[in-house]
This record gives sequence, C-alpha cells and structure tokens, in this order.
Amino acid sequence: MFDLKSWSAERLARVEQALSAWVPHDAPVRLGEAMRYAVLDGGKRLRPLLVLGAAEAVRGNLDAALRAACAVELIHAYSLVHDDMPCMDNDVLRRGKPTVHVAYGEATALLAGDALQALAFELLAPADAGIPDRTQARLCRLLAQAAGGSGMAGGQAIDLAAVGQRLTEDELRHMHRLKTGALLQASVMMGAACGEAAPEAASGLAEYGRALGLAFQVVDDILDVTADSATLGKTAGKDALQDKPTYVSLLGLDRARNHAAELLEQARAALATTGLADTQALRALAEMVVHRDN
Amino acid sequence: MFDLKSWSAERLARVEQALSAWVPHDAPVRLGEAMRYAVLDGGKRLRPLLVLGAAEAVRGNLDAALRAACAVELIHAYSLVHDDMPCMDNDVLRRGKPTVHVAYGEATALLAGDALQALAFELLAPADAGIPDRTQARLCRLLAQAAGGSGMAGGQAIDLAAVGQRLTEDELRHMHRLKTGALLQASVMMGAACGEAAPEAASGLAEYGRALGLAFQVVDDILDVTADSATLGKTAGKDALQDKPTYVSLLGLDRARNHAAELLEQARAALATTGLADTQALRALAEMVVHRDN
Repeated sequence: MFDLKSWSAERLARVEQALSAWVPHDAPVRLGEAMRYAVLDGGKRLRPLLVLGAAEAVRGNLDAALRAACAVELIHAYSLVHDDMPCMDNDVLRRGKPTVHVAYGEATALLAGDALQALAFELLAPADAGIPDRTQARLCRLLAQAAGGSGMAGGQAIDLAAVGQRLTEDELRHMHRLKTGALLQASVMMGAACGEAAPEAASGLAEYGRALGLAFQVVDDILDVTADSATLGKTAGKDALQDKPTYVSLLGLDRARNHAAELLEQARAALATTGLADTQALRALAEMVVHRDN
Repeated sequence: MFDLKSWSAERLARVEQALSAWVPHDAPVRLGEAMRYAVLDGGKRLRPLLVLGAAEAVRGNLDAALRAACAVELIHAYSLVHDDMPCMDNDVLRRGKPTVHVAYGEATALLAGDALQALAFELLAPADAGIPDRTQARLCRLLAQAAGGSGMAGGQAIDLAAVGQRLTEDELRHMHRLKTGALLQASVMMGAACGEAAPEAASGLAEYGRALGLAFQVVDDILDVTADSATLGKTAGKDALQDKPTYVSLLGLDRARNHAAELLEQARAALATTGLADTQALRALAEMVVHRDN
C-alpha cells in the first residue's frame, strides 16, 4: 500500500532545502527578504510534488526535476504575491500570514513577484549543473507557455473581467484551465520532460494533469464556501463576497462535488493509459487534491 | 563609412514585424491589447539593435538573434509598465502616450507586465524553429540572470530605497549596473551567444556591454536635467523632483559629461580587443547612446 505522507515528506524536505538555497539571501535591500517571505515555509507544495511524481514515473533526471519543482513553485508564489495586491484581489491574509504587500509595501511586493518569475527561469537554465541543454530548453518552454498570456496570466485577466458577470460552464472552465489548470498541468508535463517518455505516456500524463488541474479548482470553489478562514489559511467566502462566478455558484454544491469526483476518475483513467508502472504517487496526489479540506 | 541609420532601419523593420507577430492579438479580454500597447510603436529599440549587432559581429544564428532581440525588448517593456505604476514611480506619460495603467487600469497593467516577462522566455525556447537547444538554454540563462533580483529587478529595489538618500559614486554605479546595465550588457552577450565567439571576443563584447550600459545611464541622468518632456517623450526633471540620486546630482553636469565620454572610450577600446572584424554597428551604437538627445 502506497503511503503518500511518507513519500511526500521525503520529497518536500528536498524541495524546501532547495528553495531555501536558491531563493536569494543577498538580493538588494529588502527584496531578497520579501522573496523568501513569499516562498518559504508555506503552501502545500502540490506543484513540486506533481513535478517529482511525474519525473519518477518516467525515471527522469532527478536533478532537473528538483529544479523544475522549485521553478514551478516560484511561479505559483509570484502569482499569489501579485494577485493579493490592492489593485487585484486586495487580500491581506495568505497562508495565515500578512500578504507580502502588507508586510513589505506594494512596490517591494511588485518587484519581488517580478524577480521570482525571473528566478524560476534562471533555475531551469543552469550553466554547470549537468542538466542536458535539451531538457533545459523543454522546461523553459513548458513553464513559459503555462505562465503567460495563454496560461496563468491570461486566466487571471479573465477572472478580473468576470467579476459580477454570469459565465457559462464552458467559459468558467476556460478561465480555470488557464488560471490554475495550465500551471498544474505544466507541473506534470515538466516532470515528464525530465525523462524520455513514450508518446502515449506523455499524452496520458498531460491528460492526467488536465483533469487534476480542473479538479483542483472545483474543490477550491467548494472549500471557499464550506471551510473557514483558519482551516484555509486565507480569507474564506471571498468569491461570494466579490460576486465571482464559481463552480458552486454555477452548479450548486452537490453537482460541484459530483464534478470533482468525475474529474478524479478521469485523472485515474488517464494514468492507466500511460503504460507506466510507477504512478502510485500521482494517483495518490489526485486523490489528495479532491479529498483535501484546505 | 558605416551608416548606422540605414543599418538600424533595416533591422528595426524586422524587429517591429517580429514583435507584432509574436505579441499576442488573442490573449484574453484586454490583456493582449495592453501587451501590444506596451510594446509596439515605441522606444528606440536600443536593446534589440545591440543583440543584432553582436550576433552579426560573431556571425551567429540570425533566427535566434531575432528572437533574443524581441525577448530583451519584452523584458524592457514589462519593466517600464511595472515601473510606471502608482506604487512605483507613478508616471502617467511614456513615449509620449499615457502609461499602460492609465490606459488599461492597474490590474491589467500588472498582468500585462507579468505576461510580457513570460512571453520573453517563450520566444527564446521555441519547439520547432530550428534553434539549437544549446543556444536556447544559453539565451534563457543570460536573460533570466539579467532580469532578476541580481539584475534589473534588484536595481529597481535599490533605486526605490535610495529616494532621498545620499549615495556614493560606487553605490550609484552598483545600482545602475543592476537596474539598466544588466539588461543592456545581456543584450550584447545574448547576441554573442547566438554564435560561437572565441573567449577573448566574448569577454571583449561583455566589457563593451558593461561600459555602454553605464554610459547609457549617465546620459539618461544628464538628459533628465537638460532636455524637455516633449523631446524625451517622458516626464523630464522627475529625478530631481523625486530627490533621486543621479550622476548629475553627484558629479555635477560637466563631470557627468566627461564620465560619459570616458565610458564611450572604454566601450570602443573593448571592441578593439575582440579581434572581430565586423564591429562597426556596435561602435556606432555606443556613439549614438552617448550623443543622443532623447
């Protein structure tokens, strides 16, 4: 029986250590401090675990995978810093702590986010870490596509414009596929890019990432109405407060829960098509995403 | 006799065409529009010209160089968008037009900057453009290092913290080496990375880029007090207004002008050490940087 807790604990220790080593202590003035505040000691690290799980499934280069895991987390962290700013969601609480702009001021928060994005790509293209050029180029490509205007940043733009609007389920799905889905799916694909997966394995993993990414958001919307702020470590109920369309506002709570369960089945089925032996971690991560309570 | 005007005109036409093709028309909602507004039809395109000049000097891959030229310009453009925001310099005029946050709102400006940074790396790592993996990895590495906390973003953090402070010349030079120098130098080094320059050529070009980057800033400080807003296409006199340390406030106008002339000599001398035959464009670009009036 696969034990996700101990599998994760061992990998999270490596990720935390690597992040602490790679996010600068010595960036000018308070910039490095704000970057470390934004990244260290916080978050579930789902994306790094997906990278590592996929890299292990394809028996990929684990040094490259650790860099990819940290890079994806830096992109995620920067997006939260910018998303929390007053001109965006104007949120003051994140992971149970004051948000970066509250702690360091808006200008430093803006720059810390910008510098974290650059650092993500710096980690993926080291001069002398023995990572093949081909792997470096593929990882930069996947991360850049997932982070930009046709990925995460594009999804956030749709999200902004959607406040107070009625969206169809298709429109809502499109928004989330970009806003959170692209980076979650990229995490899996970047892990796969650390090895040489057969085409059916690569496409099965990509489909797993797609289903998991959407499931993550459906569950996020459910938790926003069913959990309290202390459990979430962020402000609960803010989607309703801001009149944002969600899976719950669109489908109601029961159908949203059924939808999450369907997506979990799709993720499991996709893993079965990969022909890979070693997908227990990815399977367990998908279950954790759907059954989590924060 | 080398004619910089006609050399530049031919290359700028290629850069403008490439930027117009690569900056998305179809990003969600108004995001793509804001990205295009931030990038197209504006600026001297100094950084792209440096990339192309260096790539031609080393007889590098010109497809890679065009991508690198556009990528550097996207990083520059995103930094201006974020720098102009109310929480930073709060500037309303840029290249003679309302700044992006004035035209599109702060949230869209923030996201457009973020998406432009991601797009820069996306351009450098294309799946099927025939750019060698080794070149892609080197370009991503150089750009990421120049853009991040130990480069441009770090320099902006020092700049923020320096308002109202007295800096020594060493401290001022350090700030500018990061804030504007890193990306200008990276432009030259990225051009060189599109070919296989001999070590002395690569180090001569890097030294040229260092001197040119610093000269650019010294002249910027001079123009801030000697030119008017209409000529500059941005608000003149704002350094003094914001009580920012500059080369002029530190050295006085005459010594600042002498310093710019010295740096131009250093840039020319560095080119002479490269052993490359074809450096007229780079030489003329350095002269233009020092003798420009906007």
